[in-house]
Amino acid sequence: MSEELEARLRALEDREAIRELRATYCFLVDDGRFDELVDGWFTEDARCSFGAADGSIEPMRAQGREEVRAFFSQGVASLLRDMAHTVHNHRISIEDGRASGDCYFELTATDVASGEDVVGAGRYIDRYRREGDRWRFAERRAEIFFIAPRAEGWNRQRFLAVLADRG
Amino acid sequence: MSEELEARLRALEDREAIRELRATYCFLVDDGRFDELVDGWFTEDARCSFGAADGSIEPMRAQGREEVRAFFSQGVASLLRDMAHTVHNHRISIEDGRASGDCYFELTATDVASGEDVVGAGRYIDRYRREGDRWRFAERRAEIFFIAPRAEGWNRQRFLAVLADRG
Amino acid sequence: MSEELEARLRALEDREAIRELRATYCFLVDDGRFDELVDGWFTEDARCSFGAADGSIEPMRAQGREEVRAFFSQGVASLLRDMAHTVHNHRISIEDGRASGDCYFELTATDVASGEDVVGAGRYIDRYRREGDRWRFAERRAEIFFIAPRAEGWNRQRFLAVLADRG
Repeated sequence: MSEELEARLRALEDREAIRELRATYCFLVDDGRFDELVDGWFTEDARCSFGAADGSIEPMRAQGREEVRAFFSQGVASLLRDMAHTVHNHRISIEDGRASGDCYFELTATDVASGEDVVGAGRYIDRYRREGDRWRFAERRAEIFFIAPRAEGWNRQRFLAVLADRG
Repeated sequence: MSEELEARLRALEDREAIRELRATYCFLVDDGRFDELVDGWFTEDARCSFGAADGSIEPMRAQGREEVRAFFSQGVASLLRDMAHTVHNHRISIEDGRASGDCYFELTATDVASGEDVVGAGRYIDRYRREGDRWRFAERRAEIFFIAPRAEGWNRQRFLAVLADRG
Repeated sequence: MSEELEARLRALEDREAIRELRATYCFLVDDGRFDELVDGWFTEDARCSFGAADGSIEPMRAQGREEVRAFFSQGVASLLRDMAHTVHNHRISIEDGRASGDCYFELTATDVASGEDVVGAGRYIDRYRREGDRWRFAERRAEIFFIAPRAEGWNRQRFLAVLADRG
């Protein structure tokens, strides 16, 4: 197989793998399978940073698998339960075993504190690294548009009180 | 073309075809084109099973095209109208003319019984079979997170009363 | 590389490029980057036509980059702010440097007139043209299911008053 052909095929396969990585993230977060998520799909030195797109909430940050694990299993899970994440508008750029990309996310959930319905949306800005035959998250930043009580809507109260208190 | 190259190209083409199959399902269900859906995109021996992810609603089951047709044209259409389905978080595995995969779905609709807005979400777990040059559903299971009145939300009333009564 | 192989690879790459075009549209509309959207991603002679799927609202039409630019920067932006578009259920057909396809869209936004939350959904029916190494929109039609106040829902009031008044 020529080098050009191999590169073009590989780029297409890599894009499929990275889209499935993004999907798998949703399945595993929503199922609370945080060990499988972090050990299987984040690099050892991965970083997370989740904050408000409008800067009104200081990002929650984590670096390395132990901090990322705590970020999900303690941070996220203490705020929201019954989560259902979906990802959309996929864009991916690949070069030399590294990749970057962005997409939108949406979520429905229940606010642990109040028991009320929650809706959320925002963007993920990611970096990926191929390790062996598997693509992993090297960095996931979330620019959150809103995580709001469904009954109030994203306009009247853009973030849950418990999040806004961190701002 | 080498056998390896053919296999890799074919796998990529198959993934595209299966994602389009999932999209076409949404278009045809929402347009009420149930004959086209069932005769064109389900195998003769296809199975459907749609129930609550939390087990609170006994699955509605159908096997073979006539039962699947009735499932949609009588079952689904008698409960919901003005449906708009979307599918997300696509994952697909392919082997030897067969494939399996899962994805999320979301829907907006109107409750036929009450005339009220409905929101829904869940996961599809599928098996597909290639017949000639076309991939078809051999099985579609839905694990439904909620099909709830929009005004109530998915937390207070996780399923429409008409569905919960089957549970 | 054989002609058949090149054609199959190219078709896969074109599908990726067209999905990214659809994603980029969402990013740029939502960010209000209308010049970049129109000059970069619409053909010189592009057409837009956005109306109600049920025919209750006369389509807003634009032809050529200047009209398309005004359509977004004056028309759309005067009605909705804080928009977040997502696209789903992608279908694409490609032939000879031209392509067509359809997908669903959903949006959340704020009604400029009332300051209230808005939800929307519908279908895009598109034609694309490859110019050099870039795919662009040659036509985007929207068949809108609803653009409704979130608090009312899509059933009680299918379109914002300001839209319905055009009908």
